[in-house]
Amino acid sequence: MSSVAAPRALLFDVFGTLVDWRSGVAREVQAVFGGAVDAAAFADAWRDEYQPAMQEVRAGRIPFCKLDVLHRRNCDRVLARFGLDAHEATRRELNLAWHRLDAWPDVTPALARLRARFLLAPCSNGNISLMAALARRNGWHWDAILGAEHARDYKPELVVYRAAADAFDCAPQEVLMVAAHSSDLAAAAQAGLRTAHIARPDEHGPGRGERQPSVPVDWSASDLGALADRLLDDGAH
Amino acid sequence: MSSVAAPRALLFDVFGTLVDWRSGVAREVQAVFGGAVDAAAFADAWRDEYQPAMQEVRAGRIPFCKLDVLHRRNCDRVLARFGLDAHEATRRELNLAWHRLDAWPDVTPALARLRARFLLAPCSNGNISLMAALARRNGWHWDAILGAEHARDYKPELVVYRAAADAFDCAPQEVLMVAAHSSDLAAAAQAGLRTAHIARPDEHGPGRGERQPSVPVDWSASDLGALADRLLDDGAH
Repeated sequence: MSSVAAPRALLFDVFGTLVDWRSGVAREVQAVFGGAVDAAAFADAWRDEYQPAMQEVRAGRIPFCKLDVLHRRNCDRVLARFGLDAHEATRRELNLAWHRLDAWPDVTPALARLRARFLLAPCSNGNISLMAALARRNGWHWDAILGAEHARDYKPELVVYRAAADAFDCAPQEVLMVAAHSSDLAAAAQAGLRTAHIARPDEHGPGRGERQPSVPVDWSASDLGALADRLLDDGAH
Repeated sequence: MSSVAAPRALLFDVFGTLVDWRSGVAREVQAVFGGAVDAAAFADAWRDEYQPAMQEVRAGRIPFCKLDVLHRRNCDRVLARFGLDAHEATRRELNLAWHRLDAWPDVTPALARLRARFLLAPCSNGNISLMAALARRNGWHWDAILGAEHARDYKPELVVYRAAADAFDCAPQEVLMVAAHSSDLAAAAQAGLRTAHIARPDEHGPGRGERQPSVPVDWSASDLGALADRLLDDGAH
């Protein structure tokens, strides 16, 4: 839809956009607690603590720390709320559920194709070790791991998108941010990046995810394969 | 030689250890100026400005900036000293010589083998885009790009090694720093990392490079292939 030059780099949101966090976390919760807990409800509750925890950092009330640290605090809270107890070692292991998430089926082949044309990096709120673990698990080859830990702040703070573009020596408009969340793309656009929306209609459970963007975007596609077809077919505009 | 547990992550110095910067820079200088300049002498002079420029940042006299920025300032100085003039576009392009360096022949196959066992990252003073360009050119697959730009300071400041270990969720002693320079390894050891020396006897021209470490190290090898043989053969100790 855009008429300007093709992007040089693609940045990706990860949780929800590239990986199915809800099924993955529920699987790990189930493995630890078995039938004692509604694992999907636990995953939802854990994820519900995500934005408020990052907001503490964004607002400057606590210094930047890795998402793993925030996830662990949130895990402890949700365990208490669900009336579950677990040893320290179990809690640590459970916290690594976020390191062991599986990609949506369209993602890995599409990233491999896109790598032939574009610099690729995650621009996620997940920390570097978490991103590296997901890349190993799912067979992704990033050029760098950018995002929150690199910028030392959390999306949607604009510095995160701008720092990622700068790391690739790109002007913001040379970078395309890909996400399944309109709020992420609205912030990326405000930072000067171009934007692509991917539909993930089942992110929060069947039928509970964004099927369409609710903000103006440069591209919108049904999945990453469809986006890759368009970016690779027409020189990205 | 060490009897403690195998490392989980390997960090690599890049200029001199993984890539032959002198031949690569000389080739690009030659391409721009032809017979008008002693290209190897230009490369050496450019590299001689490297440590003093970073020292400005380490000492806090200037804020952190990418190595590309320091390289460019140094390039301008060396051009003047050599009595050479060049347009802005030529200078910019010449500065990218450092993005187009070739690996020593043993490096790329050894990194591919090591990736099966260890997390791998550069821990270089080169910036992220420069590291990403060298990885593309030479066919390397890093788990992350760590080092100076990540830590926002330059080696041998200890924070650079420690920040790299922390990014991988590793204690310093779980990380092995690989370099062809004893000064780099001495600092890494001071930061608590384990160390491996690779001989690069021709780094600064024939016979002008470190053949042996001048400081105590945990491993010492003739090249990266030989180091990989040992790390992969014996569980890394």
